[in-house]
Amino acid sequence: MRPSKHVLRSISKIIGKTNLTTSAPDLNAYAYDGTSSWRAVPDTVVFPSTTEQVAEIMRLAYQHEIPVTVRGAGTNLSGGSIPIAGGIVLCTTRMNKIIDIDTANFTATAETGVVLHDLNVELAKRNLFFPPDPQSFLAATLGGCVSENAGGPYALKYGVFKHYLLGIQAVLPPGEIVSLGGKTMKNVTGYDLPLLICGSEGTLAVVTQVTLRLLPAPQARQTILASFDQVVTAGKAVHRVISSGVLPAKIEIMDNWIIRRIEETTPLGLPVNAEAILLFEVDGNPIAVEDEASQIIRLCNISNATEVRKASNQQEADGFWAARRAGFSAIFGNAPTVLAEDVTVPIDKLPTLMIRVQALSRTYDIPIVLIGHAGDGNLHPCILTNQKDPQHFKKANLIAGEIFTAALELGGVISGEHGIGLEKKGFIRQALGSSLIELHEKIKSAFDPKGLLNPNKIWNQNHDHPKQTY
Amino acid sequence: MRPSKHVLRSISKIIGKTNLTTSAPDLNAYAYDGTSSWRAVPDTVVFPSTTEQVAEIMRLAYQHEIPVTVRGAGTNLSGGSIPIAGGIVLCTTRMNKIIDIDTANFTATAETGVVLHDLNVELAKRNLFFPPDPQSFLAATLGGCVSENAGGPYALKYGVFKHYLLGIQAVLPPGEIVSLGGKTMKNVTGYDLPLLICGSEGTLAVVTQVTLRLLPAPQARQTILASFDQVVTAGKAVHRVISSGVLPAKIEIMDNWIIRRIEETTPLGLPVNAEAILLFEVDGNPIAVEDEASQIIRLCNISNATEVRKASNQQEADGFWAARRAGFSAIFGNAPTVLAEDVTVPIDKLPTLMIRVQALSRTYDIPIVLIGHAGDGNLHPCILTNQKDPQHFKKANLIAGEIFTAALELGGVISGEHGIGLEKKGFIRQALGSSLIELHEKIKSAFDPKGLLNPNKIWNQNHDHPKQTY
Repeated sequence: MRPSKHVLRSISKIIGKTNLTTSAPDLNAYAYDGTSSWRAVPDTVVFPSTTEQVAEIMRLAYQHEIPVTVRGAGTNLSGGSIPIAGGIVLCTTRMNKIIDIDTANFTATAETGVVLHDLNVELAKRNLFFPPDPQSFLAATLGGCVSENAGGPYALKYGVFKHYLLGIQAVLPPGEIVSLGGKTMKNVTGYDLPLLICGSEGTLAVVTQVTLRLLPAPQARQTILASFDQVVTAGKAVHRVISSGVLPAKIEIMDNWIIRRIEETTPLGLPVNAEAILLFEVDGNPIAVEDEASQIIRLCNISNATEVRKASNQQEADGFWAARRAGFSAIFGNAPTVLAEDVTVPIDKLPTLMIRVQALSRTYDIPIVLIGHAGDGNLHPCILTNQKDPQHFKKANLIAGEIFTAALELGGVISGEHGIGLEKKGFIRQALGSSLIELHEKIKSAFDPKGLLNPNKIWNQNHDHPKQTY
Repeated sequence: MRPSKHVLRSISKIIGKTNLTTSAPDLNAYAYDGTSSWRAVPDTVVFPSTTEQVAEIMRLAYQHEIPVTVRGAGTNLSGGSIPIAGGIVLCTTRMNKIIDIDTANFTATAETGVVLHDLNVELAKRNLFFPPDPQSFLAATLGGCVSENAGGPYALKYGVFKHYLLGIQAVLPPGEIVSLGGKTMKNVTGYDLPLLICGSEGTLAVVTQVTLRLLPAPQARQTILASFDQVVTAGKAVHRVISSGVLPAKIEIMDNWIIRRIEETTPLGLPVNAEAILLFEVDGNPIAVEDEASQIIRLCNISNATEVRKASNQQEADGFWAARRAGFSAIFGNAPTVLAEDVTVPIDKLPTLMIRVQALSRTYDIPIVLIGHAGDGNLHPCILTNQKDPQHFKKANLIAGEIFTAALELGGVISGEHGIGLEKKGFIRQALGSSLIELHEKIKSAFDPKGLLNPNKIWNQNHDHPKQTY
């Protein structure tokens, strides 16, 4: 159902009229997210400030059967925050208080709309560390990260969001506030509901607060950059390093296209003819870090790196990592539409996957940029296309499908950290099979009997979706 | 329902008649687990060898509405593997093949009945490491560890089972075989069903195979033993060490009672008047390990340790850890009945909790031994009692209740790693609240519509339980 004027007035009373909008330009601004190929206009966008307000809104929505899509910063890359069924966009950006940083117990409790970077700034002041580092960290909210089980480069050594999620406060779709999990790392009090909600892409509950496990900040860090004249050689170097017993915090891989773009924008003197570069970070005990950096250099050299360079100081290291982050911007700046994919394969299959993706690029004559987290097998092949050129865009989508199939054939998965959302919904049955989709439906129903919360994401939920566009 | 002769014959045809028993002595042997105060005799015990056989048994059980309780080695400490509703005990010990140790991708896939220690032996040959280390590891099966989300001392640095569980093969109660998760650390393809089943105490699905994430074996380890004349002082030392940026692999705490028992059985020259000892292990890069060991010694000294000792070699270190493991045996050997509790509090609340438990021991005049994982706030207060002395046993259970309440008041949880099972079922509503129990019921129904799999565990499920004993 669309929200009636009466419902809008009621919500307005709950949150104040300045925290609700129905103006066309506003609604258009919330019709899309970081996924470039999807768009759907909501009926209203609401900005609650408290969990109680969220609960009241959910109760109203439940009573009037209005779809609700929760949105943080909208950095989602699989269409997860697009209000495909219209209704209410519940935007969490005004729930942005850090409630508690508990230095004695290494936990942080914060509202769902806190930006990851803002938390990191506060943690750094206290010499604490929260490893998960989606590359959208400058904007992404904690609630969004939890809902997508966000990862990032640090996943190699430190894992992803779910490995740090101790507890959440959430509102169930019928409007009840619940506290799940707690503040301790060990907790087997019933089913692990925080981890069921983590990665559920906003389909089970509205996360309003999160409690995260923190670590003491590593005492030292070191960055190494290695160039290779073949993608496969770089892949072998990754395995040699990990097998050696050295576990780097990050190992990132970038292809020749990115190297060239980096050199065009922020010249670092990279070998522009290198087919691939690996960027390593080791962290921890200062003595160990130096020792492990030397080992990585040695292992890259015997793995036929064409050049290996250690950052001579933190500033140079920051430059390398800024270049890595700039990679994605360069990609998005170079095509009207980018399909930023997110497949993950067993680590030793990464070179094979990269070769297959490069072959697809040649076959279809469409550029595909390779960037990703080599250490954990998570590759982001970015297909450069243009949605307004239907034939080109169709080919790009065929490539995406072939990449998903390749990942599954290699024993991998169709999404490592971006989620299924709308973008990969068409492939979820191929990945999971129909009976697991049925089990998903039953779990969804246990939380959301009317199917109102972020409807029709992950799998086709057979609801009425008048506003779906593609 | 009890299995009819017809059903027993059908199961016998599936698995062979030597793999099914209904003899009274056999049934009695499967009537209890590591929890000393519960007992319930099943109607039959079956020993399937393959996932297909498990599926066929489950289909029969589902059709005839026979309760099924899955059991590995029966080391459970909360009554989780006790067949409280009678019916079938499905024992997994013949599903004990390690299917694949993938050294290239740092994963192991094994059948559910593989003993954790047997896996560890194979991993050690390949210089690989699987951190979760429940102290029952010499007998506990992987399926049991997954179902209980087992922890152990290594949890401090490395986390618990759920942090290493990548995928499972399972049989759903109606008898369908499903593959959940995969082989990659990053995977957001739908809901995280492996982690929902992990820690669900065998109530949602029969785990038949697990895929685990492995790490390269640490290159070096070092053990430090520190003695304190007050529990609180030991607690402060723990916090000082963790805050310093050194993250030990383990920090264990033992009280005076245990120290004395250790000295009686395996003299290590421990100060028998010490109120508490801490046992640290640091691991990783060899240079860092030496450096961090020195830091821990220094930090314990400035935290008023009465004595600090570094193991001079691996043999001495092994002796310390063997003594730690012997602690539990000493406890169980010193009383007819032991209530081995498992509360967890925020790390800085551990000294307070220990003081409250000691006070309870004095008030009720019942010995309570303190042993636990100081680094993660997980304490195992062991109440020494005798089930055959009803008055004493009643007091012991009152103490258990007061310990749970204390843990909750201190912001902790009633079970860190042993599960709720039967032992703490009476406290689950206090811990979670009724509406979360309802949500548990709905999730349980999504997997197990007839409520046949390990019924009446974790919370009261209002089924017919003629065999319940207490």
